[in-house]
Amino acid sequence: MPSIDDLDTPAILIDAARAEANIKKAQAHADAHGLKLRPHIKTHKLPYWAKKQVAAGAVGITCQKIGEAEVMADAGLEDIFLPYNILGRAKLERLKALHGRVTLSVTADSHETLEGLAATFTDAGHPLSVLVECDTGMGRCGVQSPAEAITLAKVIDQAKGLSFGGLMTYPAAGRAAEADAWLKTARDALAAAGLECKRISSGGTPDMWRSGKDSVVTEYRPGTYIYLDRYQVAKGVGTLDDCALTVLATVVSHPTASRAILDSGSKALSSDTLGLPEFGELLGVPGARVTGLSEEHGTVTLSDGA
Amino acid sequence: MPSIDDLDTPAILIDAARAEANIKKAQAHADAHGLKLRPHIKTHKLPYWAKKQVAAGAVGITCQKIGEAEVMADAGLEDIFLPYNILGRAKLERLKALHGRVTLSVTADSHETLEGLAATFTDAGHPLSVLVECDTGMGRCGVQSPAEAITLAKVIDQAKGLSFGGLMTYPAAGRAAEADAWLKTARDALAAAGLECKRISSGGTPDMWRSGKDSVVTEYRPGTYIYLDRYQVAKGVGTLDDCALTVLATVVSHPTASRAILDSGSKALSSDTLGLPEFGELLGVPGARVTGLSEEHGTVTLSDGA
Repeated sequence: MPSIDDLDTPAILIDAARAEANIKKAQAHADAHGLKLRPHIKTHKLPYWAKKQVAAGAVGITCQKIGEAEVMADAGLEDIFLPYNILGRAKLERLKALHGRVTLSVTADSHETLEGLAATFTDAGHPLSVLVECDTGMGRCGVQSPAEAITLAKVIDQAKGLSFGGLMTYPAAGRAAEADAWLKTARDALAAAGLECKRISSGGTPDMWRSGKDSVVTEYRPGTYIYLDRYQVAKGVGTLDDCALTVLATVVSHPTASRAILDSGSKALSSDTLGLPEFGELLGVPGARVTGLSEEHGTVTLSDGA
Repeated sequence: MPSIDDLDTPAILIDAARAEANIKKAQAHADAHGLKLRPHIKTHKLPYWAKKQVAAGAVGITCQKIGEAEVMADAGLEDIFLPYNILGRAKLERLKALHGRVTLSVTADSHETLEGLAATFTDAGHPLSVLVECDTGMGRCGVQSPAEAITLAKVIDQAKGLSFGGLMTYPAAGRAAEADAWLKTARDALAAAGLECKRISSGGTPDMWRSGKDSVVTEYRPGTYIYLDRYQVAKGVGTLDDCALTVLATVVSHPTASRAILDSGSKALSSDTLGLPEFGELLGVPGARVTGLSEEHGTVTLSDGA
């Protein structure tokens, strides 16, 4: 086995034991709370981990793009949820091909999306499962009220090649209770209209750990939980010792006593900080902070003694 | 020729006529000011454009990584500058292979970097050109004083397989005059020590247009100038009508009167805003602003009437 010193940098290192422990821990939590787990694979994009997640008990996987779903289908994953409005002839044709080989479900939040789906999927013997996306506070996609959800659910239910699959939301961080109340209202109104929610699907790693048995949510789509990161740690989900993904970098310059430059910049470390200060932790170097990024350089500020 | 409606989204669109006009304009400016142009290809990463830049009069190209340089060498580019401290056996071996097939130059700002280069390049008949990187105010890599530059220049000059190529800097934005004074001091001290600066290389698109004949800089490495972007427009370099690269997106959701969601998020549009407010301009839609990004969603806020 090669030594870490043989690796060219920047390199992503994955601690497989930690990732497996994170998979098991989330599955145990879901099992204990009667939740089905449908991990979001956009965090890792690796069939290797998707299969591990399913083997641990997940009911299937979640993908964000058709391209991701195609890769996972090629690798043998059998139950794929694509919670996205799929629009346009090119993507609808790929979606139809995918539906021919895996158990597929998607979402819609508009009549426009449903028109495309209904025109593409017309086989009553093999309908496409469509969940209604609900904006329960996140302010992104989704119908704005339970009444709108019912309207779309009826359209789905009446389309020959579609079947109503339930409700889906990506809740605002920390507002799972508000989302739950929204979804419960919609679920009960749908039931009164004779439409059963087979699935009520929610997502977001931090809130998963706060979801309990009193929720109407039936399935959860955590993504980041497999590797965790410093944002999750800041939100109280595990510690840095639970984080399974790190970037191995080389110090390429040390121009002053308080400044070091890494060969890992915004492309290797991400400039997407989710509001956290600075750009990363340096493991094992107390007092060293990544204070700036350009594309191929990371600037580290060293405090005294670091 | 396919219509724009046939393109799947998100898609990058490049207006070739605008890019060619930007190439010509920069070359004309450089020619008028006695500057050599050595465009940075990390903006486009396309041999097609690198060849156009050289055909327009550039003396060669600049790459930020060995992998980029290898692609450009494979495509027939013949003069490549890699302004980076190259460290470690794997990269030094690739650098040596590259030196065997193109006119190559690199930079160094430390004895550690020079030790690796001197141990790898030992052929006095075909030396590697090494420029000293100077921190003239940017606060990233580079020696901190002209005196340090002279020390390293002497080490390069005395290494059998290396030749001293001059000075290189990436100046702090808007502080080109300060950088120029720094470089002039170093150049004159090097000359007094018998070391000629064959090249004094500077970079950064906005400041290129302010560089004049009174500068000690002999070559410029602009990158973004080929496509421009809203940061350059904010800095007064051209207008949105000069920008050659746009992203074609689809509105996948329009959940409220004031909110639309694009299929283009941080991966398609970049979360790297360089300090600009918000995340992009929507061409032809006055009053619409990209106010939020997640990985595969862009949130657009629409003012009244947009």
